Amino acid sequence: MGIKSKLYEIIFESDTKVGKLFDVLLLIVIVLSILLVMLESVPSIEKQHRFLLNLMEWSITLIFSLEYCLRIWIVSKPKRYIFSFYGIIDFLSILPSYLGLFFVGTHGFIVIRALRLLRIFRILKLNRYMNEGAIIIKALKRSRIKISVFLFAVLTMVIIIGTLMYLIEGAENGFTSIPRGIYWAIVTLTTVGYGDISPVTALGQFIASFVMIIGYAIIAVPTGIVTAELSRPSKGKPSGQVCENCLSEGHDIDDQYCRYCGAKLQ
Amino acid sequence: MGIKSKLYEIIFESDTKVGKLFDVLLLIVIVLSILLVMLESVPSIEKQHRFLLNLMEWSITLIFSLEYCLRIWIVSKPKRYIFSFYGIIDFLSILPSYLGLFFVGTHGFIVIRALRLLRIFRILKLNRYMNEGAIIIKALKRSRIKISVFLFAVLTMVIIIGTLMYLIEGAENGFTSIPRGIYWAIVTLTTVGYGDISPVTALGQFIASFVMIIGYAIIAVPTGIVTAELSRPSKGKPSGQVCENCLSEGHDIDDQYCRYCGAKLQ
Amino acid sequence: MGIKSKLYEIIFESDTKVGKLFDVLLLIVIVLSILLVMLESVPSIEKQHRFLLNLMEWSITLIFSLEYCLRIWIVSKPKRYIFSFYGIIDFLSILPSYLGLFFVGTHGFIVIRALRLLRIFRILKLNRYMNEGAIIIKALKRSRIKISVFLFAVLTMVIIIGTLMYLIEGAENGFTSIPRGIYWAIVTLTTVGYGDISPVTALGQFIASFVMIIGYAIIAVPTGIVTAELSRPSKGKPSGQVCENCLSEGHDIDDQYCRYCGAKLQ
Amino acid sequence: MGIKSKLYEIIFESDTKVGKLFDVLLLIVIVLSILLVMLESVPSIEKQHRFLLNLMEWSITLIFSLEYCLRIWIVSKPKRYIFSFYGIIDFLSILPSYLGLFFVGTHGFIVIRALRLLRIFRILKLNRYMNEGAIIIKALKRSRIKISVFLFAVLTMVIIIGTLMYLIEGAENGFTSIPRGIYWAIVTLTTVGYGDISPVTALGQFIASFVMIIGYAIIAVPTGIVTAELSRPSKGKPSGQVCENCLSEGHDIDDQYCRYCGAKLQ
Repeated sequence: MGIKSKLYEIIFESDTKVGKLFDVLLLIVIVLSILLVMLESVPSIEKQHRFLLNLMEWSITLIFSLEYCLRIWIVSKPKRYIFSFYGIIDFLSILPSYLGLFFVGTHGFIVIRALRLLRIFRILKLNRYMNEGAIIIKALKRSRIKISVFLFAVLTMVIIIGTLMYLIEGAENGFTSIPRGIYWAIVTLTTVGYGDISPVTALGQFIASFVMIIGYAIIAVPTGIVTAELSRPSKGKPSGQVCENCLSEGHDIDDQYCRYCGAKLQ
Repeated sequence: MGIKSKLYEIIFESDTKVGKLFDVLLLIVIVLSILLVMLESVPSIEKQHRFLLNLMEWSITLIFSLEYCLRIWIVSKPKRYIFSFYGIIDFLSILPSYLGLFFVGTHGFIVIRALRLLRIFRILKLNRYMNEGAIIIKALKRSRIKISVFLFAVLTMVIIIGTLMYLIEGAENGFTSIPRGIYWAIVTLTTVGYGDISPVTALGQFIASFVMIIGYAIIAVPTGIVTAELSRPSKGKPSGQVCENCLSEGHDIDDQYCRYCGAKLQ
Repeated sequence: MGIKSKLYEIIFESDTKVGKLFDVLLLIVIVLSILLVMLESVPSIEKQHRFLLNLMEWSITLIFSLEYCLRIWIVSKPKRYIFSFYGIIDFLSILPSYLGLFFVGTHGFIVIRALRLLRIFRILKLNRYMNEGAIIIKALKRSRIKISVFLFAVLTMVIIIGTLMYLIEGAENGFTSIPRGIYWAIVTLTTVGYGDISPVTALGQFIASFVMIIGYAIIAVPTGIVTAELSRPSKGKPSGQVCENCLSEGHDIDDQYCRYCGAKLQ
Repeated sequence: MGIKSKLYEIIFESDTKVGKLFDVLLLIVIVLSILLVMLESVPSIEKQHRFLLNLMEWSITLIFSLEYCLRIWIVSKPKRYIFSFYGIIDFLSILPSYLGLFFVGTHGFIVIRALRLLRIFRILKLNRYMNEGAIIIKALKRSRIKISVFLFAVLTMVIIIGTLMYLIEGAENGFTSIPRGIYWAIVTLTTVGYGDISPVTALGQFIASFVMIIGYAIIAVPTGIVTAELSRPSKGKPSGQVCENCLSEGHDIDDQYCRYCGAKLQ
């Protein structure tokens, strides 16, 4: 077994001991790199520990660069890796560091530095460990139409309430435009309640009370939708099998005969 | 086929290609018209782009007017359309633009302009695409008595708490009247929490803490009600049919053959 | 049929037409009386409409007094009515108005006036119309131990977090004492978030973030408890029957034979 | 029966009358001691009632010390008790009072005083009364992977949103660093909404609205997870067994006889 296939096992797979160790190490470096970007944005920390932060930043960039090159070298079809989702993420997580060199002191520098945070998506690589996540995503997917309808209803409600409050409260109470009224309506309906804009007139407060109670009641809807999906027994769910005889769909995974025509399922 | 019946197919129905295209175009114009009303209410945008906004406004009004006239001309019983729900919505969505001409510069002008937002209800025309919405509405309808009882209980609670806080905190801490106390109670119980009024005395804060925890616990009630309704299998639930050949269970109501052995179901 | 038994039918029962009408009229008067108490507490309204408010107040008091006397006169055992729950509520809802006469201008006057709001409990008389409420209350009752345990856990959490924040943030950032820290912890955990006290130090904000996410996650617990109770099919629940043969419990209401030993159930 | 085994029954067990009384008395003392620590931290109360508070503090400390010594004396293997979870809690709940004597007036004094709150964990001793709590904890444990995945997704979302807002709003609007942006994102996504930092620019408010609606929708996920777990019948769920004698269904897994006809189940 050549060095290439050995490295492949370590870097791309995770069923050997060394492969798992590599995954854990990579996870630590990713978390470290994210913490680094955060800390660097705090003015007081940045001033005091500039040298240390720079040192760590370039160490991490070098590690990620090395990993990126290794991956390209190892895989049999480099182009396919480079243009794959993870290939692009890997590339984007080292690019900003190098780009930063050309933009030092410019206005765009801060944005480019922040782009390093795209490294966070590298964590998605670890999703092979998360089978449970798939169940949640599947439940969300199955309920996506219901949730869209719900969000659409909320949006309509929020536009009408926002306009109403704009007319009632007016610019002198902070409701300077309809979009701002809608912003307030969203803040209130979702029970966030910043308090940066809040109704002052009696009628406005009455309507606000109404909106809050509505918001309190309708939060039940998305919850109900997702819960109903998650409670649905997982086995016996449609397998995507198609009957070769009558072309019907919607069979369960453990079905062996078509339930519509009785033919044997493949 | 005359031009009238051809237009009828395009405007009123959506199963032909052109009919679908018409629906999509109309949806875009509706969304545009809503965005327009919103943007116009922002003082800075209104000043800078007054001409462009006016131009778009009148283009949209003309399109809607044309559509309205076409609909009246096409349908066999115009009166029935005019006084139907959608007929009134269609009329109300063009009326404010024309009315605005007579009220330029007056106090009511801003209200009339805002009334154009009634166009948002035109989107309801598209609800034939949303079968999923019906399930949610049905679940809400079936639980409407339970939710009413719950809201009634919340209202009673909120009146008592609001009065109590008015007596405890008094006008000097922002609780100037019982309705204001009730407003605060709603803001707190629904976990919105603006912070425009908040208890200052120790006793007031103690009661507030109590109200918050109550609110935290009772949000479970509407959620539970709606979830229980949505989880209730409507149709297509296991029918309890037993296959006479292999005695297997768990067949759906519309299954005609056993999915395990392929025998015909009774 | 004497006038007494006729009045009894009208006032105490609600299955005749006049009885229903009486109930509806009473409901209107109750709601009016509550609105009156609220409006009276608003200084601007009280000053402007003092005479009208007083007039309405005494009309309502007279109606309630009349009703109270009638009820005592009608029932066969007046003492039993007077000391029943509704008898006391009826008495308490007229007492403050008369008491107010003796306390005009004193400090306690405002409290006595507010006590008139006890009339709100008169609405409970109408609960015979609300069978649906019973289902919710039953579900809440069945889950009362689970909810108590949950609230107890929340309380413990909140005391520890509040003390921690008191130590970290200290009096200079608004956390002047442990009870105040606990107040903040409740405001945050329940996602109310007034913003009257909010963490200022970095460590405080870190812990606050942690508390919020915890609060976001554990709101699922009471919801889950109540939903599980409401979803539970009501029939077929353990009947409390005990098998006479093997003394086993946990049989369903419609079971006729012991499921553990096969003996006939009583 | 010697005094030791009698005391053992009172202190460690709770099935005798005296044992239960001891438990209740201990609970009262624990709650009193917690209230004491809280009240002591309020400057105004501490100044006025210093002597009384000190007296109560030392009484409670003595009671706890006595109980601790008794427990060590009674149990057959003192070491095992001392290093057990409850032994350590018992020790930690008396230690700070004695330690405080050495640190009077120093900076650490206030922290040591607060440590007395560790007494709260003594309440956990009473968990033998709470069987219901076990069901909740079991449901939470079973859903811990799903909840972790959810919290991980929330964390990723919050980091990206926080960075975005830091770039859009900038230091002049309160978003002074990425961690602060993340703090804001958590405050908003969890619908706490302090309002100490809130977006000022139009784009910032637009993104904030988006975040709020997302937060409103995804709160459904943990709720759904926990509810699905709590609703899941743990044991005794229908086994699908069919009685061979009367062909009835709906028997539990551990049923051995048909509950409808009494025949032996296979």
